[in-house]
Amino acid sequence: MALTLLLTASATAAIAGPIEEQIRFRQSAYSFAAWNVGKIKSQVVDHPETFNKDAVAAAANAIAAVANSGLGALYGEGTDQGVGWKQTRLKPEFFQKKAEVTVAANTFNEAANELAKVAATGDINAIKAQFGKVGESCKGCHDLTRIKE
Amino acid sequence: MALTLLLTASATAAIAGPIEEQIRFRQSAYSFAAWNVGKIKSQVVDHPETFNKDAVAAAANAIAAVANSGLGALYGEGTDQGVGWKQTRLKPEFFQKKAEVTVAANTFNEAANELAKVAATGDINAIKAQFGKVGESCKGCHDLTRIKE
Repeated sequence: MALTLLLTASATAAIAGPIEEQIRFRQSAYSFAAWNVGKIKSQVVDHPETFNKDAVAAAANAIAAVANSGLGALYGEGTDQGVGWKQTRLKPEFFQKKAEVTVAANTFNEAANELAKVAATGDINAIKAQFGKVGESCKGCHDLTRIKE
Repeated sequence: MALTLLLTASATAAIAGPIEEQIRFRQSAYSFAAWNVGKIKSQVVDHPETFNKDAVAAAANAIAAVANSGLGALYGEGTDQGVGWKQTRLKPEFFQKKAEVTVAANTFNEAANELAKVAATGDINAIKAQFGKVGESCKGCHDLTRIKE
């Protein structure tokens, strides 16, 4: 009994680090993406007079790189509870909705990669249209998986 | 006198948000890069038997996207003090060493973009060699700008 408790405690301690790390890395990835989303929103939607083709293309590449980075590896069992940079907002039902999550994640992935392609052309109207689709794909995943603040 | 103090306080309050945000975004960017550095180290250096060409190429693209994202915009005046996700470790002398910082940043940028090219070939030995150069370029900037933990 004492040994069982000890082993359980050790196992919990052993995975505690990785869980906090997974949460911290995914918060970092989405925050880095959010910074780049903000740059595109500013230059394409809010202040198109400041549009800089190279800066917007770099920001779109950054969002695509986040989408392509294998974020799924950061959603291990138990990561609906824990503190990375801050308490995670992952809904516990994430783990019961994996099929829906996969569809939502693929939608984001495709939209982000298409945005990187469109951004390389420098066509601000086409970028704005595709940027809207990326925003919808973000919201689709957030509604499904993230606790509202 | 009272008015001057009030205006100074307001100005400080007005930039406090952005300073915290700059620090948080750069901590996010480097943490996202560190996660991807860790994936390459694991698959190329520590456990080459797990090497996955596509995963390593995606990780290298992610590091390059961070390098190309215009991180300099996140080093505004006053950002050597403040809390993003945690207290910044930026050395105050960063602002007196801008020429050296630019050289170090460009070295990282070139090394990271070259790594993305080499990673696309799937040649593990070439990736390992270039990955070493990226690591050196990281260290070069850290020694110059970051307070040791």
